[in-house]
Amino acid sequence: MSAPQPPPTPLGWHHLVELGGCDVAALDDVHRIEAALRAAAKAAGATVIDARFHKFAPQGVSGVVLIAESHLSVHTWPEHAYAAVDLFTCGVTLDAEPAVALLQAALGATTVSRQAIPRGLTESARGG
Amino acid sequence: MSAPQPPPTPLGWHHLVELGGCDVAALDDVHRIEAALRAAAKAAGATVIDARFHKFAPQGVSGVVLIAESHLSVHTWPEHAYAAVDLFTCGVTLDAEPAVALLQAALGATTVSRQAIPRGLTESARGG
Repeated sequence: MSAPQPPPTPLGWHHLVELGGCDVAALDDVHRIEAALRAAAKAAGATVIDARFHKFAPQGVSGVVLIAESHLSVHTWPEHAYAAVDLFTCGVTLDAEPAVALLQAALGATTVSRQAIPRGLTESARGG
Repeated sequence: MSAPQPPPTPLGWHHLVELGGCDVAALDDVHRIEAALRAAAKAAGATVIDARFHKFAPQGVSGVVLIAESHLSVHTWPEHAYAAVDLFTCGVTLDAEPAVALLQAALGATTVSRQAIPRGLTESARGG
């Protein structure tokens, strides 16, 4: 194995998406959440490796899809009509836009706010 | 089910951690990565629900631990001596500090940079 080289900057993007005013029934349906997250991964052009979903009592769902390009996750709070989504993509082949649009539609979100955080090492850390 | 109420602000914190200058062998060892991430979840005070790990060819590991309080994930790039960690916590009972310290030690990271992003709805979205 050759000596490790500093990663490119950024190495990837971490999209954090807040979905508000969602369909409360959708947020509490683990099967719908799983179908939506898997469809979102596909819409982004991601290669799905594995996935885990969990239904909480009395309400709420968590799910993660491991993709070759990192991961997607969703956590839902039906009591707040809210879902937190994150999509961490490395490489340049993925498109987060259709994934977010699909999840917004699937969960009936009436508000969407997003931020994309660059991942990787800062200049000072790259020299470390 | 009563009408959904807007979530508290913030509903949780998403800790994004960049670990640089890591032990390359550790980054490529799925068993060590799994042990470290599970130990980090425990150190944070989290309740582990499920976990998935994957070893890539030729190198690199991805892993996610679903916790009752959301999730932890790690993605490693041995070729860059780099690991990207995220820890999404909701509620006030979790402490990210010991989890980050444990992962830093387990992966032999020589540089650590972090940010904590508040999750939940913005004021405008809360009224939506």
